[in-house]
Amino acid sequence: MDRERHFEQLDPTTDDPDELFERFESRRVSGRVHHVLTDSRHGLERGTVVVEGEGIVRGYPSIPRVLVTDPGVPAFFDGEVVIEEKLNGFNVRIAAVGEILAFTRSGYVCQYTTARIRDLLDTAAFFSDHPDKMVCAELIGPETPYTDHDYEGIESDAIRVFDIRDRESGEPLPVDGQEELADSYGFPQPRQFGRSRPETAAGTVREVIEELDGAGREGVVVRSTDGRSLLKYTTEAQHHADLAHAFSLPFEYGRDFLFSRIVRDGFQAVEFDEEPDRLRERAHDLGESILFPLVEAVERVEAGGQVGEHHTVRADPAVIEQLLAHLRDQGLTLEILDDRREGGERVVDFLKVAQSTQDQIDHYLSGGTLNE
Amino acid sequence: MDRERHFEQLDPTTDDPDELFERFESRRVSGRVHHVLTDSRHGLERGTVVVEGEGIVRGYPSIPRVLVTDPGVPAFFDGEVVIEEKLNGFNVRIAAVGEILAFTRSGYVCQYTTARIRDLLDTAAFFSDHPDKMVCAELIGPETPYTDHDYEGIESDAIRVFDIRDRESGEPLPVDGQEELADSYGFPQPRQFGRSRPETAAGTVREVIEELDGAGREGVVVRSTDGRSLLKYTTEAQHHADLAHAFSLPFEYGRDFLFSRIVRDGFQAVEFDEEPDRLRERAHDLGESILFPLVEAVERVEAGGQVGEHHTVRADPAVIEQLLAHLRDQGLTLEILDDRREGGERVVDFLKVAQSTQDQIDHYLSGGTLNE
Repeated sequence: MDRERHFEQLDPTTDDPDELFERFESRRVSGRVHHVLTDSRHGLERGTVVVEGEGIVRGYPSIPRVLVTDPGVPAFFDGEVVIEEKLNGFNVRIAAVGEILAFTRSGYVCQYTTARIRDLLDTAAFFSDHPDKMVCAELIGPETPYTDHDYEGIESDAIRVFDIRDRESGEPLPVDGQEELADSYGFPQPRQFGRSRPETAAGTVREVIEELDGAGREGVVVRSTDGRSLLKYTTEAQHHADLAHAFSLPFEYGRDFLFSRIVRDGFQAVEFDEEPDRLRERAHDLGESILFPLVEAVERVEAGGQVGEHHTVRADPAVIEQLLAHLRDQGLTLEILDDRREGGERVVDFLKVAQSTQDQIDHYLSGGTLNE
Repeated sequence: MDRERHFEQLDPTTDDPDELFERFESRRVSGRVHHVLTDSRHGLERGTVVVEGEGIVRGYPSIPRVLVTDPGVPAFFDGEVVIEEKLNGFNVRIAAVGEILAFTRSGYVCQYTTARIRDLLDTAAFFSDHPDKMVCAELIGPETPYTDHDYEGIESDAIRVFDIRDRESGEPLPVDGQEELADSYGFPQPRQFGRSRPETAAGTVREVIEELDGAGREGVVVRSTDGRSLLKYTTEAQHHADLAHAFSLPFEYGRDFLFSRIVRDGFQAVEFDEEPDRLRERAHDLGESILFPLVEAVERVEAGGQVGEHHTVRADPAVIEQLLAHLRDQGLTLEILDDRREGGERVVDFLKVAQSTQDQIDHYLSGGTLNE
């Protein structure tokens, strides 16, 4: 690649091109070489990609989180903020680099999502007008190969555009401009809960969170109106859903994952649960989120069954073929539960087998010991 | 030290003395040099100590655990087993190496426990007859500097001798011989629940565990009658108490600590909780064990208070002075809550301040962000 030019464009915090470029992994994607930064380094986001001959696709920044809305929200912002719904789906950046591709958070091209996006958004029109931009979006709904959270009214999958940025610099548009631009191409966007001064935003966030929690939804992202500062905060329902998911595959998920959800829930309880009954209810729900899926996983293995993540995908047969091959290439064992055609599309129900959980549960059930 | 002789006596799995001895740390304890193995290495237990001029004090072996009693217990043993209560206290080895000292699991000499043991056990008589043995014991009760679990009938502290081994080789006595020997010096021992064939032991363990659980006690150790094979299994009450303790100081305790307790509880639920009501009750209790102490810790910091581990110690004033100095030397911040004399002894209530928890709760409460 043209290291000198890319180094200048990437504008990292190191002065040494070697130090930067040794962190990039190269792979070939439909005829072009992609150099991918797989971890955040030198001021650059994880998933930043240099597409040879086409330029840079900057990674999406990691969004900081607060554990209390007050003073968490007012302490973080100087001026007016916008409160938007944070969706529980699969985060992609869509960019025109030779062709229109959907990049995962870590910089992989997901051909399945790429195909879905071509169906769901008029990206051709957008990128012919704005080749230098990238569209940041969440693929949501019960039928995706990565997540399966249900949203009312979404039967298969859907897309929500939550950000539009300069592809090479990662610089966001101001919130107003971004919304207008997305609207003008008919891009669906996450729900907005209005604007606030930072000093009143915590109250609004809290009301919104209570409402979203009741509906089993994830949480909010608060943004400065210039689009540059982002902050997130999540619901009890999401913490418990995360724990339930993790404990359904207890030996696959990291210890940090579990701990962080519990800590979020604890700080939220201090801020929200003034009534002892409400706190007790949260505690009971937390316990059930952890223990029930764990017991179910152990019982399933005990009964000779398989544990894993269940997904449904629906697309053109060639895209499905490519997706399954891609998942298997990543070392996943897939158990196909159902495979059918519906209106020219192939619909596959499958399990990503959780081999580590399967093996460890088997080991302990047959009397295996643990040395601590 | 006399490396050649000690190397031969220690009989490690490596052939290279340098490789072994570089793992030892040296310190001076009342005029003698102690070389301490701070981690288990080369087939030697963590806490193995070479006392210069006096010989070796082998570490106490780590006891493996099963997650199901059946087939866990029968799969582990070949012949008859003895079931004994496992106590929730502070594990020490007592040995005569120039003087009679109490060694912690990691090989430190605890002067406080050493003094308590001189009061509680007639060790002088024992070691004058058996200088080559070590006495393995648990210091239990509400007044110790390390644990504070309440046991019925123990107002301050007490000692239970659960094992007698050859000091240099670590070889245990057979269970019969050990009990007789302990009895003959009046050493109190943990409660015994009789002997079983391995095929019926799981049933006995389960009954015993249900009884101990009802009394809020820790669990059992199952031993082969030759004393060589040891296996442990714990109660729901203990798992939840561990979690409650950990979440009272959430940022001090390791993620692995939390996860392992939850997993123990999950496997036990599969084996024990046939009734849905019982399982729900366990889940609710688990949730309360986690959330209530976490909320309490956050609220305490919010109210300007300090969090930490609360202990009471009672001993000769010089011993207390030494203990407090020792704890401070280890980098602990102590908050003295009460300091009084009772019948010639000094009694101190103190808090080992949990600085990391204190600081992190403060940070998040004042709106600090988390970058994940």
